[in-house]
Amino acid sequence: MKNITALLLLLFLTLPLFGQQRARKEFNLPDILGYKTLKCDFHIHTVFSDGNVWPTVRPEEAWRQGLDVIALTDHIEYTPHDKDINIDFNRPYEIAKPYADNLDILVIRGGEITRGMPPGHFNAIFLNDASKIKTDKWQDAFKAAADQDAFIFWNHPGWEGHQHDHLARWYDEHTWLFEKGWLQGIEVVNTYDYYPEAHQWCIDKNLTMLSNSDTHDPVQMEHAMGIYNYRPMTIVFAENKSEQAVLDALKARRTVVYSQNRLIGDEKFLLPLFENSVEFLSTELELNGRGWANCFVKNNSDVEYKLVRASLNDIVQVQREIILEPGKTTIFGIRAWDRKRGGKQKVKLEYYLENLLVRPDEAMKYNLELTVKFTPSE
Amino acid sequence: MKNITALLLLLFLTLPLFGQQRARKEFNLPDILGYKTLKCDFHIHTVFSDGNVWPTVRPEEAWRQGLDVIALTDHIEYTPHDKDINIDFNRPYEIAKPYADNLDILVIRGGEITRGMPPGHFNAIFLNDASKIKTDKWQDAFKAAADQDAFIFWNHPGWEGHQHDHLARWYDEHTWLFEKGWLQGIEVVNTYDYYPEAHQWCIDKNLTMLSNSDTHDPVQMEHAMGIYNYRPMTIVFAENKSEQAVLDALKARRTVVYSQNRLIGDEKFLLPLFENSVEFLSTELELNGRGWANCFVKNNSDVEYKLVRASLNDIVQVQREIILEPGKTTIFGIRAWDRKRGGKQKVKLEYYLENLLVRPDEAMKYNLELTVKFTPSE
Amino acid sequence: MKNITALLLLLFLTLPLFGQQRARKEFNLPDILGYKTLKCDFHIHTVFSDGNVWPTVRPEEAWRQGLDVIALTDHIEYTPHDKDINIDFNRPYEIAKPYADNLDILVIRGGEITRGMPPGHFNAIFLNDASKIKTDKWQDAFKAAADQDAFIFWNHPGWEGHQHDHLARWYDEHTWLFEKGWLQGIEVVNTYDYYPEAHQWCIDKNLTMLSNSDTHDPVQMEHAMGIYNYRPMTIVFAENKSEQAVLDALKARRTVVYSQNRLIGDEKFLLPLFENSVEFLSTELELNGRGWANCFVKNNSDVEYKLVRASLNDIVQVQREIILEPGKTTIFGIRAWDRKRGGKQKVKLEYYLENLLVRPDEAMKYNLELTVKFTPSE
Amino acid sequence: MKNITALLLLLFLTLPLFGQQRARKEFNLPDILGYKTLKCDFHIHTVFSDGNVWPTVRPEEAWRQGLDVIALTDHIEYTPHDKDINIDFNRPYEIAKPYADNLDILVIRGGEITRGMPPGHFNAIFLNDASKIKTDKWQDAFKAAADQDAFIFWNHPGWEGHQHDHLARWYDEHTWLFEKGWLQGIEVVNTYDYYPEAHQWCIDKNLTMLSNSDTHDPVQMEHAMGIYNYRPMTIVFAENKSEQAVLDALKARRTVVYSQNRLIGDEKFLLPLFENSVEFLSTELELNGRGWANCFVKNNSDVEYKLVRASLNDIVQVQREIILEPGKTTIFGIRAWDRKRGGKQKVKLEYYLENLLVRPDEAMKYNLELTVKFTPSE
Repeated sequence: MKNITALLLLLFLTLPLFGQQRARKEFNLPDILGYKTLKCDFHIHTVFSDGNVWPTVRPEEAWRQGLDVIALTDHIEYTPHDKDINIDFNRPYEIAKPYADNLDILVIRGGEITRGMPPGHFNAIFLNDASKIKTDKWQDAFKAAADQDAFIFWNHPGWEGHQHDHLARWYDEHTWLFEKGWLQGIEVVNTYDYYPEAHQWCIDKNLTMLSNSDTHDPVQMEHAMGIYNYRPMTIVFAENKSEQAVLDALKARRTVVYSQNRLIGDEKFLLPLFENSVEFLSTELELNGRGWANCFVKNNSDVEYKLVRASLNDIVQVQREIILEPGKTTIFGIRAWDRKRGGKQKVKLEYYLENLLVRPDEAMKYNLELTVKFTPSE
Repeated sequence: MKNITALLLLLFLTLPLFGQQRARKEFNLPDILGYKTLKCDFHIHTVFSDGNVWPTVRPEEAWRQGLDVIALTDHIEYTPHDKDINIDFNRPYEIAKPYADNLDILVIRGGEITRGMPPGHFNAIFLNDASKIKTDKWQDAFKAAADQDAFIFWNHPGWEGHQHDHLARWYDEHTWLFEKGWLQGIEVVNTYDYYPEAHQWCIDKNLTMLSNSDTHDPVQMEHAMGIYNYRPMTIVFAENKSEQAVLDALKARRTVVYSQNRLIGDEKFLLPLFENSVEFLSTELELNGRGWANCFVKNNSDVEYKLVRASLNDIVQVQREIILEPGKTTIFGIRAWDRKRGGKQKVKLEYYLENLLVRPDEAMKYNLELTVKFTPSE
Repeated sequence: MKNITALLLLLFLTLPLFGQQRARKEFNLPDILGYKTLKCDFHIHTVFSDGNVWPTVRPEEAWRQGLDVIALTDHIEYTPHDKDINIDFNRPYEIAKPYADNLDILVIRGGEITRGMPPGHFNAIFLNDASKIKTDKWQDAFKAAADQDAFIFWNHPGWEGHQHDHLARWYDEHTWLFEKGWLQGIEVVNTYDYYPEAHQWCIDKNLTMLSNSDTHDPVQMEHAMGIYNYRPMTIVFAENKSEQAVLDALKARRTVVYSQNRLIGDEKFLLPLFENSVEFLSTELELNGRGWANCFVKNNSDVEYKLVRASLNDIVQVQREIILEPGKTTIFGIRAWDRKRGGKQKVKLEYYLENLLVRPDEAMKYNLELTVKFTPSE
Repeated sequence: MKNITALLLLLFLTLPLFGQQRARKEFNLPDILGYKTLKCDFHIHTVFSDGNVWPTVRPEEAWRQGLDVIALTDHIEYTPHDKDINIDFNRPYEIAKPYADNLDILVIRGGEITRGMPPGHFNAIFLNDASKIKTDKWQDAFKAAADQDAFIFWNHPGWEGHQHDHLARWYDEHTWLFEKGWLQGIEVVNTYDYYPEAHQWCIDKNLTMLSNSDTHDPVQMEHAMGIYNYRPMTIVFAENKSEQAVLDALKARRTVVYSQNRLIGDEKFLLPLFENSVEFLSTELELNGRGWANCFVKNNSDVEYKLVRASLNDIVQVQREIILEPGKTTIFGIRAWDRKRGGKQKVKLEYYLENLLVRPDEAMKYNLELTVKFTPSE
């Protein structure tokens, strides 16, 4: 079959024999501080509660979308398909595990304690036996999870199913759980919702920040995979890609929240994430005769960084906004107020990294330090 | 809450309360010959056989992708999830029906008779009781379907699971079925595969041509919804949008196959589909001083039509290829060989509609008739 | 040439003979109040000042992007290409006009009076002779424009080239121009920049609001044509598509500003734009047994409307945000607080149309009135 | 300005101060054989002949689209803008050069000898003075180019402006040029057109193969920058990124043609391009109990490679087609015919690289060698 026309015909009419085209698009984020940066989603449903996909779909979706770790967390107290499905809270994990192994996706056994508010919904992950957290009293469910050394976190604390005004509220029950050590983290983001109150609680009480999809349907129905449109993810900084290392990192609060192109977390993580993502091709700029110079920055990550000018600079005029597109080299310009000035000069340009949030109402400050060389104008 | 900054904050941080963004994108194809043009997919699986989604997902996907009709056709003889699911071949339909009704999607009860080759796999649709086609002998399964006045068609006749060289073969068993009236149509396209042998059989034996997704996973895993990338569909020309009218149309062979921006079928359907899709803003063109004129064509459908020149014209030079993008107005040019000539002239430009196939090796011919007005050049 | 393989080969290897694929994508916005809704860009440069494209490129770009009207407005006082180009301020119009006529694009003759601040930069459009506004004193330039019955508007009043802090300032010179009747409108948006001060001045002083691209380079270099990413446009409500009607509409302040999926202007225009864009498939909703109902809305325009809940409703729980995607049918849900209640009930859901701005800090309010039918739950 | 709502407001309303967002997307293709792989376009027009953009636009476009080298080649004999522009054939280069230097784009001085057929149109590049090739007799133009040690190639040899049937024809004039050494290469691809005759001549006569855009308008009007939709490029394998090294590589015929996701050229270049583009994550595969195994391949280039099965394999069933998406990891499956067989086995899977063309009618063969480990089934 040497003839290209025949080949073209085939091309037009065929695709893979054994099923669909399967491809993984990495979500590029750099490693930092000696840790491996893992992309995780710890809140996922299947047909074994009120989800609508078979458990194997979850690692396949995760693999394609560039994730490393998922937890299957079906509702314990809400199983609307039980007329047709024999509910066993360990089956989602058992079914998904060999499939996930094949794709090198870590899958974590979990379950969602699904109670009225307070205390509301909580995920317990790293369970040995998910069926044990099905108890009459909610307190017993937490105890059963804690007995298995699970990691337990509060889901969507301001969910409108519980709080009609969408405001997260802290009840005595949460104090009780917190004091027991049974409330180790909170979803600062769930699906598309950000909870500023939860963000502040995590800062104040040293709780782990999480961001999860809570996906029930095929994930692409809920989170289109366009650019900047990845599903919400908990970014975990782990010693290595293993269940134990992920658990250790969660307990040590080494996480950052990713949601719709925003990163939310502690500056100690956000700053190296940004700095390891970008390359300034030169930080010594020579102004041309008109007093202008271009700065080239390569963004090797899949986050689009948006810098917004925090103050006017005395020496050079700078852009009000700089957008560093993912995977691209961006140019931004500076211009000397006085182009006749000679010599070299260090300038410190003050910016906010607009989509990097260190507190509920505060973007991370970033000082861009450049050396500017003035050519005395003739 | 008058302040726009607060609104923006909300916007950035929220999306629908009750779940994901749900939107339908029509797949625009015109009605023809007094019939309603329905977009159908008659081969779809769920968790009740080897599919990986809950039955309600199927009408939701269909609604979003602009379809009108789906059939749920789980394998009768292959049910790998039966350890966890109580298999009942009528349940997929029963579960999906109220969900589909709400979205005005017609859902048809079906089942896939899944046997070795020959005779291979067949869908029986418009069943009253899908469980009755579970029989020991394959002949009895067809009889049970026929007894329910089902519409029965042969699936993916050259599937590599059966035919390693991907060539469809007609066996005595097919003759037997055909003569009984139990083989009423064939999938000319299944998933991404086109079967030219099946195409020819449909022409020769007056069988209904079908094109179906055979989707097992979430449909977006198998058929990305980019432009020109819709799932394969059977286009049905029905009296109205009702189960009975769809069945009547299938029996009357009023269908056209859609697959990856190609339409395959009889010229009596393809020609009006094309002609009702496009508007020539003018078919009388006045040449300018250089002997040129532009022709504007609006394509109101979601098929991109590709015209390839079939012959050189004596009077005007014409484009070798004209691409009519979906939903857009396209310009193509003509140029007089002799711009000094005066008067009006009818020209017939011979094209192939490259992506409209009337036989396995033949694109539909289309004569584009224009009147050209020559301005005698000074 | 009957053989499809040969056709495919051709397809793969060819495209139009006479040049590139040329197609127009309409920017759909409904007509309102008996006027025709025209999409206009009144601030455009060419190689005849500091622009970088030949004048014919401008109508071609406008045609492809769905515009109806453009003005060519080269700088009068800044012509950096004059070493290579014989500067004549009427040539851009003369060159572009026949090209634009062919595409049914209206092209308006203009010029940009380009002075230091105050008074800054102004466009004079609908000129008869653009060269006459080249004068020594800026006052004479305005007079020369006014003598031609031009429409004169202030460009990018807070441009950082003039105002380092990006704040628009009103000087005595503007009062002088305004009182003469030589300042008839202001660019509320220029390129990507919105000027809230200018927005307020237009409201307070009854000035025409404009939004223009100020494009210098090929427009796709500056304004990618992705979804929601159209260039800024002045939306004009005119008696018909003619130069005179556009001028009349500008003088009568019948405009709305479009910029990055936002519409800015008077409620008397924004409300009918929204209402003529969307179709509520039903405004009488029957709640199901669980107290839920779906509302279907078709958005026939190319603006994505974003509704943000303004208040909680007493009778039904409603989505915090509703996004009406362009060209699609969207579903949003409501849920009765008390599903046991019977009877019919009118409900008024209070929303902000988040991307429709009636004042600098105020989104347009919209009350969505529905009738809800309660089925008394058994 | 600590408040995030204010930041968001700014974000929504602003973009760069000094002009548009400028970003470069690399076109990733690996280096091979010790050479640097440069992406080049040697046929580009500006307003100085019949192009429609100012010369500086060309290096800007090239930078954004990931190119390394461009040649400006305005028509010498056709200058329709000469009423408005003072035509000087060296000006395009002089104007573009400093702009290109700033972006690290190499710009080559050229000109297009634009004559009737025969001999047709030719580009002379690496000129010192482009005005010298404006001569009365075409023979003198070639001599003037050769005297400057230019590289001379034949443009679009089957262009319909010259050959109405789109077939390239070799005339005595071409033999004369060839024998003088004044015809050193041919455009195998120009714009969207591939010339199989020219392809064969390059093979037979040892001529350099080129692929160029021949862009006249803004390049995005002619070549959308979607995926697989890059402009046509001549891929040059050079000692380094310098004018001299590019000229040396062209003379040594170290080029490959890129056009619409196809690579055309000698196997000695195509094979290492493919092999350096892809990483087989493992070439030793262990079959699972059902006789299946997955192979993971990472494609680090921006070419989508399409492998079409050339023959059936005796030991394993293999996919009819494998598509390696750019920048992604793709899975393809194999399945043992006889899963009960034990031991390790080398298999050689024969494929065509469908979009890599070594001769006009021949795709490149590629043998994929894997080791398969059979687990004797229990």
